[in-house]
Parts: sequence; C-alpha cells; structure tokens
Amino acid sequence: MGEFELIARYFKRPVRRASLGVGDDCALLAPRPGMQLAVSSDMLVEGRHFFADVDPQALGHKALAVNLSDLAACGAEPLAFTLALALPQAHDAWLAAFARGLLALADAHGCELVGGDTTRGPLNICITVFGEVPTGQALLRSGAQVGDDLYVSGTLGDARLALEALQGRIALPADVLATARQRLERPTPRVALGLALRGLATSAIDLSDGLLGDVGHVLQASGVGASIQVEKAMELLASSAYQSSAGGQFEQDFWRRCVLAGGDDYELAFTAPPSARAAVAAAALQADTAVRRIGQIEAAAGLRVVDAAGHGLRLAFPSFDHFA
Amino acid sequence: MGEFELIARYFKRPVRRASLGVGDDCALLAPRPGMQLAVSSDMLVEGRHFFADVDPQALGHKALAVNLSDLAACGAEPLAFTLALALPQAHDAWLAAFARGLLALADAHGCELVGGDTTRGPLNICITVFGEVPTGQALLRSGAQVGDDLYVSGTLGDARLALEALQGRIALPADVLATARQRLERPTPRVALGLALRGLATSAIDLSDGLLGDVGHVLQASGVGASIQVEKAMELLASSAYQSSAGGQFEQDFWRRCVLAGGDDYELAFTAPPSARAAVAAAALQADTAVRRIGQIEAAAGLRVVDAAGHGLRLAFPSFDHFA
Repeated sequence: MGEFELIARYFKRPVRRASLGVGDDCALLAPRPGMQLAVSSDMLVEGRHFFADVDPQALGHKALAVNLSDLAACGAEPLAFTLALALPQAHDAWLAAFARGLLALADAHGCELVGGDTTRGPLNICITVFGEVPTGQALLRSGAQVGDDLYVSGTLGDARLALEALQGRIALPADVLATARQRLERPTPRVALGLALRGLATSAIDLSDGLLGDVGHVLQASGVGASIQVEKAMELLASSAYQSSAGGQFEQDFWRRCVLAGGDDYELAFTAPPSARAAVAAAALQADTAVRRIGQIEAAAGLRVVDAAGHGLRLAFPSFDHFA
Repeated sequence: MGEFELIARYFKRPVRRASLGVGDDCALLAPRPGMQLAVSSDMLVEGRHFFADVDPQALGHKALAVNLSDLAACGAEPLAFTLALALPQAHDAWLAAFARGLLALADAHGCELVGGDTTRGPLNICITVFGEVPTGQALLRSGAQVGDDLYVSGTLGDARLALEALQGRIALPADVLATARQRLERPTPRVALGLALRGLATSAIDLSDGLLGDVGHVLQASGVGASIQVEKAMELLASSAYQSSAGGQFEQDFWRRCVLAGGDDYELAFTAPPSARAAVAAAALQADTAVRRIGQIEAAAGLRVVDAAGHGLRLAFPSFDHFA
C-alpha cells in the first residue's frame, strides 16, 4: 500500500463544516463571523506517551482526546484537525484500528479530519486541532482572581495507577487495573464542561502533566497563589474504594502522588468566584461531568497543599517534564 | 534545561497578528472577515527528510519552508504556525541554531509561532501552518482546464543532484555541490508567486515529490491529462551549465530523473489559459520569480512527456512515496 492509497483508504472522508478537506496542498476552514479559532498541537511518541504494544484503536482515541482536552480547557467547540503520522511500516490492521479509534472520537465531537501528512519513521503522531470560540470568551490560564474557588472535574490518579502497574512497579487486581487502564488509554476530553464554563470560569487548564504542576501554570500566568485541601483532592481518586481496602498496602504518599502529580488525567482544573458556585454546579450538571471544589486562590504566591487543620504538607512531587 | 524553560528560551515570542500565542492550552487566531484559513501540516523525520548531521539552522529553515510552500500553492498569505518537536536531547547549541533558522524565515514572511509541543523522542519536526486567502480564491489542484498552459517556477533538479552526491552515489565538484545543496537544504517557498497568481492560475501544486508525480495529482483532481515537452522541462535544471560541461559524465537519463522526478524542489507547478500569458508573466515579474511554460493540459487522461518532434518518451520514474 502506497502513501496516497493509505491516506485515501483510512483518512480521506468528505467534510461538511470545513470548506476543503484532505487532498489538496491546504485544507480550508471558514470560522463563523465573531469567532476566534483556537489551535492546539500535541505530539505522541512511542515509549514516552504510549507503549509499543498499545491497542491501536485506543491510541487513535487518545491521540485526538489529548488535543480535544486543550480545546475544552479554552471553552472552544471542536471544528477540525490535521493528522501527521510517522509509521515504521504501513500495516493494514494497525491502521484500520487506529483510524477507527481516532474517527469515532472525532465523529462524537463533530471534529473533521481535514489534512495532514504521512511518512515512514519511528512511530509518531502529531495532531493539530481547531476549535471555535466567540471572540474574547476563551478560557485562559491568566484569569484566576484572589478569592476564587479552585475546581477539578472528574477523577484523578487512575492513569498513573495503571502506568505504575503496566511498568511492573506495583501489582493490581485485574478488575482494578482494567478500570484504571481505561483512564490511561481512553481519556475523556471534557469538551462539554469547557463549553458550559464559558463566561463562568475565570481561568482553566487541562491536566496532562499532573495537578500540582498544571495548577502551577495557572498561578504563574495569573500572578496569584493557591492552597489545595489535600483531603478534598484525595476525594478525586477514582480508585478510592480499592485504596481503602487492599490498596492499603501502598503508602499514603503513593496515593497522593497519583492524585496530585500523576499526570495523563485530561481533566479540567478551573477557577470561579464563590458567587458562581450555583452556576458552576448547574454547568457541571448540564455537561454531565462531576466537579469538585478543592481549594482557593490566594494572594500569596505559590501553591500550598494543606491538611484539614490548615497545616501545610511538605510534598516533593515533580510535575512531568520531558526534559527535566 | 526543562521542557518549559526550553519553550520559553527559544520559542516564546510576543505575537502581533494572532490574538494569543505560545503559553496557554490553545493559541487564538482571528482570520479577517471574508477570509478563509488555509491549513497545512508537514512532518520531517531524521533519515527520511534530512540527515542526522544536517546543519540545524538549515533544518529550522526547511521545516517551515516546506509548509509555507503549501500555502504558496494555495495562494494563501502566511499568518501563523505551530511547532511540535520530538528531540532525543535538549542541546542548547542545536536548539539555538534550529530556532534561528526557523524564526528568520518566519519573520521574513510575517508568520508567527503561536504554539506547539515539545517531547523527548527520535528527532521529529511537525509544523502546522496557517494562512489567509479571500473566500473562494484559493488555488486548488482541481481547476486545470483543457487547453491551459502548464508552468513551473524557478528551477528543478538541484535538490536531487545534491542528495545523490551526499549519499555517495555520484561525485560533484565542490562548487556545484555547494550550490545544489543550498537548494536541498534551504528551499525558497514561492509565497509571493502564489499570491500573485490568485485569480489567474486555474490550478496549482507545490513540487515536493517530483514534477511528474505532483503534476499527476493535479491531472487526477482536475479530470484531465497533459503533455510536457522534455526540452522545455530540462531548461528548468539549475545546474545546466555543469550538465553541459563535466556533467556529461552522467547519462541523459540521470539528468531527466533529477528534473522530472527529483523531488524536494518546492517550486510551484500551475496552469493558466493561453489568454493569460501576459498576466502570468507580469505576476512572475511582480513576485520576482521566474516561471517557464513546459506543457499543455489536454483532454486525454494521463501525463505524456514528449520530445521536440512530439514523440512520446518512455520514462519510468516513480514519484516519491514513503510507503511504496
């Protein structure tokens, strides 16, 4: 199968929202009047972001999901994406499964594949995604205000739990691993929540490198500090049932690391004033996505993790950094 | 140097045309009213698109140039780009040189770096570029009409000549190699020509895989055929002075392969009706880019290469295909 046949077979589909899709030198997009185009690009590399033997359908899902998560964090509505793919070989079954996972998630969000590139090389997936957001309404990292509540959507920590098990550092019961692995390999981008938070959240970010590190970016961009109540944050752990039973074999520090610095969660962290609590609850309901209030924005710079008595904890969890 | 420091040091610059640049979950672009956004994405892989020891400044240039060439082929004006970069290590000197080459070309075209991604992995550069084109005025592959002239800009064949020498298959005098190597490593995207051809060319494509193969895409998309006069095409060879002297050591077939199927030229091939010849010449002058008429669009399907007497030549030059 040649390069052009490969594109035609798996990736060329008619477009409805874009003006021109796969097959020319460029794709053509026409954002609606009054809309800004939100753009994000993520690159996934074998051995860094996924294992060599990952299910290709899950990989197709995840490659787009992590990009949609960036749109969600901006409150942008998915519109289209490009896919650049380096492959060691063009294996029919692998490509068919990859395309199936990728395009199923794309279709679920009305996000069209409009172009890209294929080449031979070490497996590498680079997706650039486009979304629309009304001019001036994008959720940014820089808008957090002193006194705002700090929220996190969904659950945290399971992706890291699965990673630890898949890398052989811990052993998990099969059912616990299966659930956690779903979170690692098939994250759910919080697009509906991002849209519902427009005009409501003062800042937002998607959690890819770990809660503490990513919230740190918001604090830095906003010129503020924050405290996180560790007990509230630990309620975000999806595997808390396991933790409180057999999971007691792992130290408290292990579980805290999963939740506070696990990474690969693809949930949203966002801020909103206390006056908006009812509206935030309504937005979460509308988006069918649980949100939890875990802390407050404060004037003093830095991010403090405190216990129920308000005492600061000494934690040393590095945020994920590809070059640290 | 960590991932975020790396981005800040080399790739974070203030934006003027984009609404939001590097540093948030998404960049924000606001195409002007009446404009469509042209989008193209190209991935460059070590060992496929460049040698491991390539000058990083030239690589930075080329990575953006091949994308700007796609905008040129659509008649789009460069606006912004994202850069996703997988690196085995974060070497300061390498990154500084890469960024210098990349951003110099970006600045020359007013094309802003607005976002992207960095990760550790086998060297891989994925750029997605954005340009503006007035709605409905993009040059497409699908517009060639029977009777149109077929043109090519600039020169062809030198990139392939350099590649053959650098891969040790031929020996070239140092001055010939140096000139040819410039064409391989620092191609000039024909952006000004693409803009000047708006409303004039009936179709256009950028030449990345080789003249015959790429023109074949235009013919297929337009549902037409074409003939190319081999003598006219061979006048596109930049190294013709060398060819007619010492280059006589190589067979005619070698030179034809360089011009007709060499690849990596990043010139434009385009079509326009004979009635537009004076206008095309004026556009070329305005864009300060030579163009040459090398053939005609015909009703009979297929691409014929003919000699001066109109006899078809039997050539078997495959177009470059990463998976063939």
